[in-house]
Amino acid sequence: MNSALYPHFSFDIRDQDLNSRARLGCISTPHGTIETPNFIFCATKGAMKALRMDMVKESDAQIILSNTYHLMLNPGADLVKKMGGLHTFMNWNGPLFTDSGGFQIFSLGHGSIASEIKGNRMQKSSRSLLKINEHGATFKSYLDGQKHLLTPEKSIEVQIKLGADLIVVLDECTPFHVDKAYTERSMAMSHRWALRSLEEFKKRSKETQALYGIIQGGVYEDLRKISTEFVNEHPFFGHAIGGSLGASKHQMSDVIGMTAPLLVRDRPIHLLGIGGISDIFEGVSLGIDTFDCVHPTRLARHGGALVQPHLLPESKNTSSREHLNLRNSNYKEDPNPIDPSCPCYTCQNLSRAYLHYLLKAKEIVVLELLTLHNITFMVRLMKAIREGIKQNNLPALRKEWCS
Amino acid sequence: MNSALYPHFSFDIRDQDLNSRARLGCISTPHGTIETPNFIFCATKGAMKALRMDMVKESDAQIILSNTYHLMLNPGADLVKKMGGLHTFMNWNGPLFTDSGGFQIFSLGHGSIASEIKGNRMQKSSRSLLKINEHGATFKSYLDGQKHLLTPEKSIEVQIKLGADLIVVLDECTPFHVDKAYTERSMAMSHRWALRSLEEFKKRSKETQALYGIIQGGVYEDLRKISTEFVNEHPFFGHAIGGSLGASKHQMSDVIGMTAPLLVRDRPIHLLGIGGISDIFEGVSLGIDTFDCVHPTRLARHGGALVQPHLLPESKNTSSREHLNLRNSNYKEDPNPIDPSCPCYTCQNLSRAYLHYLLKAKEIVVLELLTLHNITFMVRLMKAIREGIKQNNLPALRKEWCS
Repeated sequence: MNSALYPHFSFDIRDQDLNSRARLGCISTPHGTIETPNFIFCATKGAMKALRMDMVKESDAQIILSNTYHLMLNPGADLVKKMGGLHTFMNWNGPLFTDSGGFQIFSLGHGSIASEIKGNRMQKSSRSLLKINEHGATFKSYLDGQKHLLTPEKSIEVQIKLGADLIVVLDECTPFHVDKAYTERSMAMSHRWALRSLEEFKKRSKETQALYGIIQGGVYEDLRKISTEFVNEHPFFGHAIGGSLGASKHQMSDVIGMTAPLLVRDRPIHLLGIGGISDIFEGVSLGIDTFDCVHPTRLARHGGALVQPHLLPESKNTSSREHLNLRNSNYKEDPNPIDPSCPCYTCQNLSRAYLHYLLKAKEIVVLELLTLHNITFMVRLMKAIREGIKQNNLPALRKEWCS
Repeated sequence: MNSALYPHFSFDIRDQDLNSRARLGCISTPHGTIETPNFIFCATKGAMKALRMDMVKESDAQIILSNTYHLMLNPGADLVKKMGGLHTFMNWNGPLFTDSGGFQIFSLGHGSIASEIKGNRMQKSSRSLLKINEHGATFKSYLDGQKHLLTPEKSIEVQIKLGADLIVVLDECTPFHVDKAYTERSMAMSHRWALRSLEEFKKRSKETQALYGIIQGGVYEDLRKISTEFVNEHPFFGHAIGGSLGASKHQMSDVIGMTAPLLVRDRPIHLLGIGGISDIFEGVSLGIDTFDCVHPTRLARHGGALVQPHLLPESKNTSSREHLNLRNSNYKEDPNPIDPSCPCYTCQNLSRAYLHYLLKAKEIVVLELLTLHNITFMVRLMKAIREGIKQNNLPALRKEWCS
């Protein structure tokens, strides 16, 4: 069924960890292959923030993600198509993922999980989500306040114009606080939207793109079961675990644990928006094949350099940290690189003292230097994890990479 | 005399244009050679804004300049020295120039020529130059308002700690509006400061740095003559033309024309702070060997891409322009690169439409992309000029590069 719809794509499982559900695989796309488990770096607006695409490629990153929401508003899907598609426009000739645009509309509209947790309820007037019904979602542009309508069909149309290898159905991203009844109704609508997405995809597909379905159901095991059955039954190329993953790392594990094992084995599983190191180990061991998150690149722009625990300074809070804060004056005279074992330009040539100085002096090149390091770190992490699956030593590896 | 003080430096003139004073030369330093005429790119605070040093090197830039004023205040010369000197600190292993720190103190203190022209006289309270006398200049730090004293000895001490290959004596940079009497008194003091700089240099030199003297005298031919005689008589490695160059391109030519021919032939001549394309042709034809200016890199950060005249859009103002303004909506759907003949990453891979979009979307990577292009442009310009001197065809070349 799948091979007919996606003749130029494949997913092969090459090895299976003996002690967990972790698996080693390979996703083939018209723009190259992705060894899994792997991490998808965010080039939100069609550019990696602070880093040239050839540098991203040179760091051995295999796949990046751009956001449909941003690109459909500016510069617009038609312009991108006219310029040869997103790969050509931004000069990334490797595998590329776009999301459906829904996440930004709903998270900006409902208010994000982070702002929920912090208690920053949005004023109704500042909400960008104007209306949501069976047809689609009406929202105000973050750029100029203009009204837009995003439907499942429109999302597919835009994603086909952008031309990413892997694309995703539109779903409603429910906020964390909604109850089970809302979650169930929303899931059912997301399933109907998924079918409309699939129809639109079949109508427009030129066989150069592959469609992911999304599993909803929040933190409710019975709903997750229904949603996994739904995606399993329809010809999606891959599956993304979406919706609320709960309020804690523990709950996130529970949700993945009740979802991933029920998914058909021969499709790649993506976990949306997760990028912490320990979260990745947890996800991999539960069967996740790919992750995406702005965390590594956003952290870089705030002066954070990802490191293994043995490079963290000793402190009471070390256990929850996975990076050095190079703005800290401790690094003012530190002649060492971030990590002497890291092959990136930054670590091979520059001291923590210099990076600290650049951050203090607001020299923009430091954003590039730290982004490069964090991408290189994630690439090495995922490579180590793949090796760990081969060697069946994920638990030991996890201790090496997570404090 | 010079070879004793600068055993590891040399300046050789290899060819002479038949129709002008333009000359082809080579400056040798412990960190490599600079083919002249050449352009010195500004890495003001010990970093090229928006560009990694290996990329600067890869673009074939041969020499860069950092500013003593900024570095002495932050991170401080002692820290830079402790980290192995400025070359190591910022990972630039080619020839490096530092200025004396005077220009910023005096231009921020007196008010810049630009603000004079625009009539933006500074309020006395905002001036950072507190006192200037025979001993040196007292100024407020731009960072924290703290009082600092810069003397000729202090400038040399700081520049020796920073460790650039080519360093400069401290002089008073007089503002454009001062009269001849002030210019003359100031010049005489700058000469005394130059001798103090030279003494301090002799005392501290480890033979890894070479000292430039500065010619003052404003727009007055008799003063410029006195100042050239002064620098000629003392063992400077090179000469920099400083002070006021007048209020117009025409006056600038006059000042260089009355100064450069009087300088001893066997020392390189630097023109401080000039970087327009037509100005460079003019300077080269009058005998200038090196130029420095923030223009190419600053222009990049404002969305300007340097190009030859045949790539400029037709308009009434074309004659005074040397760049494309990529913010202009004309480029919104322009699939062409800035310049198809340019070998830089930006031109080889990206369209004007994409660069226009990145500028509008405020994606910081565009600053890197345009900086790289403008540096590559200047490198190609200077290479063409050196070839033009060899071929004795500077006038034809000038038409090709300047509108």
